[in-house]
Amino acid sequence: MNQKSFQDYYPDFLALCYGCGRLNEQGHQIKSFWDGEETVAYFTPKPYHTAIPGYVYGGLLASLIDCHGTGTAAAAAYRAEGRTMDTEPPLRFLTAALNVNYLKPTPLGPQLEVRGKIKEVKGRKVVVDAWIVADGQITVRGEVVAVQVPEDLIPGLK
Amino acid sequence: MNQKSFQDYYPDFLALCYGCGRLNEQGHQIKSFWDGEETVAYFTPKPYHTAIPGYVYGGLLASLIDCHGTGTAAAAAYRAEGRTMDTEPPLRFLTAALNVNYLKPTPLGPQLEVRGKIKEVKGRKVVVDAWIVADGQITVRGEVVAVQVPEDLIPGLK
Repeated sequence: MNQKSFQDYYPDFLALCYGCGRLNEQGHQIKSFWDGEETVAYFTPKPYHTAIPGYVYGGLLASLIDCHGTGTAAAAAYRAEGRTMDTEPPLRFLTAALNVNYLKPTPLGPQLEVRGKIKEVKGRKVVVDAWIVADGQITVRGEVVAVQVPEDLIPGLK
Repeated sequence: MNQKSFQDYYPDFLALCYGCGRLNEQGHQIKSFWDGEETVAYFTPKPYHTAIPGYVYGGLLASLIDCHGTGTAAAAAYRAEGRTMDTEPPLRFLTAALNVNYLKPTPLGPQLEVRGKIKEVKGRKVVVDAWIVADGQITVRGEVVAVQVPEDLIPGLK
């Protein structure tokens, strides 16, 4: 596992995301890493991230899938171009589609493992399979269709 | 529009959801209402609910679709039984599947309108179409497959 997460390489003006921006103090600040051919992030929900008592709020689980998915998409895009994440220009992805299946309730308390696997890299689009493991069991499976952020949405990008 | 939201009828032990529980002080506390044959909720994201600067975080949008969807599912289930939401037993729904398509970036700032429409009510399952309107434009469309909470997940339910 690398020391520096995918999100640590995002330039400052792209590091404000509530889910994964390292500069968003109110956000989740999730951090994703390569783990062989898969990617992984760890996150421990807060006690108030509840759905029904004892179980994690589904919107948070969708958020974890989402941000880990776009982070994985960025890492995959750099890798497809044969360069490291600290090289220019920065590649950053937005979610076009997010599909989440809640296989069973996710217990609130234990650290969650969010995993990702690249399904497809095609032009500006990357599709990522992602899933969440709690207490050794897969409780959620999702898919993220990520597209590279259009340059006109990034005023700071030269 | 009714004065009391769907979520105001949830019994206390089911009112802790981070997205829509009226008793979750840290949560979003979204409130959904009938509006003719559709349902509606309004939510103004906080400045820190950002994705890339100027746009709303996708995980929050997914959360709004999710909670408004399960709230709509509950309201639909009561209506299908011909009873009001203040009657026993309480009906509460969990998300089995959440599919969200981000049609265009959602501007951060304006109040968002979250709308729902019942697609199917079948036994313990309700399917809801939902979408988000910002500045008069639909920016997100989603579908929530909601299932009634199993009794064994609710210790407080008699």
